[in-house]
Amino acid sequence: MKYKNFPMVPRVVFGRGSFNQLNDILAPKRKNAKAPFIYLIDDVFKNNIWLISRIELSYDDRIIYISSAEEPKTSQVDELVEDIILSTKERPSGIIGIGGGTLLDLAKAVSIMLTNEGESHEYQGWDLVKNPAIYHVGIPTISGTGAEVSRTTVLTGPDKKLGINSDYTPFDQVVLDSELTKGVPKEQWFYTGMDCYIHCVESLEGTYLNEFSKSYGEKAFELCKSIFLEGALSDVESQEKLMMASWHGGMSIAYSQVGVAHAMSYGLAYVLGVKHGIGNCIVFDQLEEFYPEGVQMFKAMKSKYNIELPEGICRDLSDIELDTMINVSLGLEPLWENALGKGWKQKMTAKKLRELYKKM
Amino acid sequence: MKYKNFPMVPRVVFGRGSFNQLNDILAPKRKNAKAPFIYLIDDVFKNNIWLISRIELSYDDRIIYISSAEEPKTSQVDELVEDIILSTKERPSGIIGIGGGTLLDLAKAVSIMLTNEGESHEYQGWDLVKNPAIYHVGIPTISGTGAEVSRTTVLTGPDKKLGINSDYTPFDQVVLDSELTKGVPKEQWFYTGMDCYIHCVESLEGTYLNEFSKSYGEKAFELCKSIFLEGALSDVESQEKLMMASWHGGMSIAYSQVGVAHAMSYGLAYVLGVKHGIGNCIVFDQLEEFYPEGVQMFKAMKSKYNIELPEGICRDLSDIELDTMINVSLGLEPLWENALGKGWKQKMTAKKLRELYKKM
Repeated sequence: MKYKNFPMVPRVVFGRGSFNQLNDILAPKRKNAKAPFIYLIDDVFKNNIWLISRIELSYDDRIIYISSAEEPKTSQVDELVEDIILSTKERPSGIIGIGGGTLLDLAKAVSIMLTNEGESHEYQGWDLVKNPAIYHVGIPTISGTGAEVSRTTVLTGPDKKLGINSDYTPFDQVVLDSELTKGVPKEQWFYTGMDCYIHCVESLEGTYLNEFSKSYGEKAFELCKSIFLEGALSDVESQEKLMMASWHGGMSIAYSQVGVAHAMSYGLAYVLGVKHGIGNCIVFDQLEEFYPEGVQMFKAMKSKYNIELPEGICRDLSDIELDTMINVSLGLEPLWENALGKGWKQKMTAKKLRELYKKM
Repeated sequence: MKYKNFPMVPRVVFGRGSFNQLNDILAPKRKNAKAPFIYLIDDVFKNNIWLISRIELSYDDRIIYISSAEEPKTSQVDELVEDIILSTKERPSGIIGIGGGTLLDLAKAVSIMLTNEGESHEYQGWDLVKNPAIYHVGIPTISGTGAEVSRTTVLTGPDKKLGINSDYTPFDQVVLDSELTKGVPKEQWFYTGMDCYIHCVESLEGTYLNEFSKSYGEKAFELCKSIFLEGALSDVESQEKLMMASWHGGMSIAYSQVGVAHAMSYGLAYVLGVKHGIGNCIVFDQLEEFYPEGVQMFKAMKSKYNIELPEGICRDLSDIELDTMINVSLGLEPLWENALGKGWKQKMTAKKLRELYKKM
């Protein structure tokens, strides 16, 4: 048996207000006056002086605001890379992603594609990246996806939704400042937090589980429970705990994998463009057969926070659309194998998957 | 407030038998035929074919067996570095430490001193190291110290026992193969495991605690409890869980600090040469005043495994020796501040410390 030699984020700052240290962290990484820092920032912060005024722009440094209304796409990555190459005198000194999973994944992908030839969809898969990425920094402003610590960047491409999984994907530096998450709207907070919760269930119930993943997964699970179910925390405590839950949840997947909910949610995203967090929730809500206790607890959390999930989103899909959805989902073999074991193809057929999607 | 930008081990392999991957991991790190890999290995493995035969030595690669009967010393580091410099044609490609905390700390210190001038005692303290260390790999064969993940290497020097705390100290690569811990004698297993347990108590009860340290510390604490108190685990489970407890315990100290037990145990080590694990146990056993619940649980664990601690080791010390012990201990200001808060000097005087030592 061969074990993964897992790449970890080599630098992390944690603390309320630690975002103030960003300029000092970046300064020694500037190569020269012609090699700027490029900030990719969720456009919800566009007029947010509290956050933006703390970023010191020098020389050709530049902020690019990006909407996270849609899942990140390979075409979007390629356009960003072209824009950056055309507008900078030299290769950037660094890419800084500020936002939720969408922005973090875009920052990771852009930093990879600035040093690797071709188009980003060619790198969707496992270990296809050849050259180290540009120095890249991740600063989450929503907690749950684990994108700040994972070795993947999940993109929707021309023919699949799949991550660029590589040793060069993880951030070189992460800043964990829970204060940045204080303005997240309740629904988004819940959906993104549930991404973490679902990671834990899928990892802990998966066949790939080992003691490394287990210890991280159990801690993240316990933190999610205290935030979303027990819920007697102050806002600050809750924000800090969710930030750590996301971190540990991401670490838990290092040696394991996600499972049925993620495999199906990728299909929803590909065909309908459903965002990852809410997509996971819509799917997980119907997975009692696979994760009985996990789904039961999820329903209790949903009810505690009065979350109403959209219904019937697959009702009017054509057969062709449904087939595409099923194919995208079944293509994620490691996820199914983790969830259902080596013989997963007997347990999860196209027919069965169609029935499940039809319920959503 | 300024937060630490904590350096993490950037690569980790976890798995039973993962030691078999060491040669493949090292191969791409070899600079050339004249730059060897130097293995520092606990001499208990000297005739252990099961372990040693799996290490492929090429060119000028060399194994140096080292006894861990004594705590690592700055003079020992300096001698090792001189030996390595005189016996290699070029600076080594890497230093690989295989053993418990003593061997891991020696490997870290040697890799630092191969690229930094002067003697190692000059670097005891915080952030005194100027140049990046040689590539270094840590492979624990006993679990508990957290040395595999920490940013310190604790050495006994001419006038103090203190770590070389720096961003260059952490290993570049760690291999976590719990199978390597299977032959540890019961007493050593207990003392080293208790080092982890005591880290957790000191971190969780300390004033420096934040949510990052807390989540790691709580998980490590829980794992220690399941191993040393509940104890219904198989040998393999127990070994794997303790390996993760050590890892999480080490991470927990990243943002916090150890406390009273470590501060006092350093004094014992400096004057009497008491090894770190057992020293912590001897001290912690007397600290009910500071850590009431933690010490109570420790006593239950001790009794479960029929551990008898040495008594009266300070009974015959001269006043000069006791004063030295007290001075070494009180010199560890961050540990005391973490344990007792900013006003710790009012709470822990030389007189009080003398009384505590006298009980041991």
